[in-house]
Amino acid sequence: MKIDILTLFPNMFAGVFNESILKKAQEKRAVAINVVNFREFADNKHQTVDDYPYGGGAGMVLKPQPIFDAVAHLTQHSPNARIILLCPQGERYTQRKAEELAKESHLIFVCGHYEGYDERIREHLVTDEISIGDFVLTGGELGAMVIVDSVVRLLPGVLGNEASSVHDSYSSGLLEHPHYTRPADFRGFKVPEVLLSGNHRLIEEWRQKESLRRTFLRRPDLLEAYELTEQQKKWLEEFQKNER
Amino acid sequence: MKIDILTLFPNMFAGVFNESILKKAQEKRAVAINVVNFREFADNKHQTVDDYPYGGGAGMVLKPQPIFDAVAHLTQHSPNARIILLCPQGERYTQRKAEELAKESHLIFVCGHYEGYDERIREHLVTDEISIGDFVLTGGELGAMVIVDSVVRLLPGVLGNEASSVHDSYSSGLLEHPHYTRPADFRGFKVPEVLLSGNHRLIEEWRQKESLRRTFLRRPDLLEAYELTEQQKKWLEEFQKNER
Repeated sequence: MKIDILTLFPNMFAGVFNESILKKAQEKRAVAINVVNFREFADNKHQTVDDYPYGGGAGMVLKPQPIFDAVAHLTQHSPNARIILLCPQGERYTQRKAEELAKESHLIFVCGHYEGYDERIREHLVTDEISIGDFVLTGGELGAMVIVDSVVRLLPGVLGNEASSVHDSYSSGLLEHPHYTRPADFRGFKVPEVLLSGNHRLIEEWRQKESLRRTFLRRPDLLEAYELTEQQKKWLEEFQKNER
Repeated sequence: MKIDILTLFPNMFAGVFNESILKKAQEKRAVAINVVNFREFADNKHQTVDDYPYGGGAGMVLKPQPIFDAVAHLTQHSPNARIILLCPQGERYTQRKAEELAKESHLIFVCGHYEGYDERIREHLVTDEISIGDFVLTGGELGAMVIVDSVVRLLPGVLGNEASSVHDSYSSGLLEHPHYTRPADFRGFKVPEVLLSGNHRLIEEWRQKESLRRTFLRRPDLLEAYELTEQQKKWLEEFQKNER
């Protein structure tokens, strides 16, 4: 996969892209990541990338020209690239979207910073508008990093044994059961007996039940889309009874 | 505000924390950010921070001792610090939570990476568990950066004029209206006439209507919590009629 990032703050990315899984994925050539300052594409002599909004008002607006020309340059040999704008008005990012993007061969991220985007970038250039959540960030850069991290770890050959599925809550449809490691008694806080029992059937049952309990308590919305087994239905009735 | 970040990958943070608003906020002493490798607090001779899970299974689990002791050290003089665990099972992060955290004087973020957390960290140490969204990331580091960025920009004196409220979609309760800047005709794509008219009443009306239209089309869920004016109710009926 090829990933280009258009930003006015290219230095923001080095720390995240040169560590851990993203570093290894680049070393293994599963992904090539290229961070581009789109100011280099401004065709005016002062390399201005923003201007005042038509109709007045506070704040600056990113001009269409530098971003259109940067994208045109990057897509010369790749007409099917996904061009992703990070913005609060975009589609909410989810694991399903990560899985969709992981099938692509070329992703281009457009990151604004402080400024608004000229609407023509939105209407006539990008293929996707994504928001990572209902909160206000200084720019699109952190959103691009989040998407890159979540997509690249899905690429074939990227995750080794060191990165198990321990955090993959959203893949199973339920939240993860609790985890414990040594010591069995940490300053008076104890590990549940069953996990020390060596009885694998009981351990598996405890984990399934605790996974369901946690989902019921914290994210009942996930249960709406989930098909429960008979055993899970019984547990759920038990949890509901305990709530009353 | 004081912010401590506990992580095994401290190098991930430099790029994001040394640019733009976060850099300026530290220069203005609105915030002091301290990134700590919690491996330094491991009391075993190999500085091990994780171990196999009780009950078996894939993946490693972060031991309680290094994180408990790191937090104890950092809260010596600040017993009321918020101790925030980044995890998929946590409360969904929103702008409301950013506003709540911005009132605190000391935030401590605990970032796992690959591994699960020993449940006793969750139960007996942290005050908040936060997830930035329903997607799987390699670690908690990006989530911590997202929260730090969104909180610090709310601190008094941090945002100058360069960072207007142009992106503050979630503060007004509706999505932003479209923005345009020069040229009025960019490669055949034109700016709406009204914005060139100089008629401020009409421009303001157009903006309010387009803000409502965008919210109706993209995020109708936001309208449920929004109190509409009579004019907005009429516009909404018009949009709904056009949909049929």
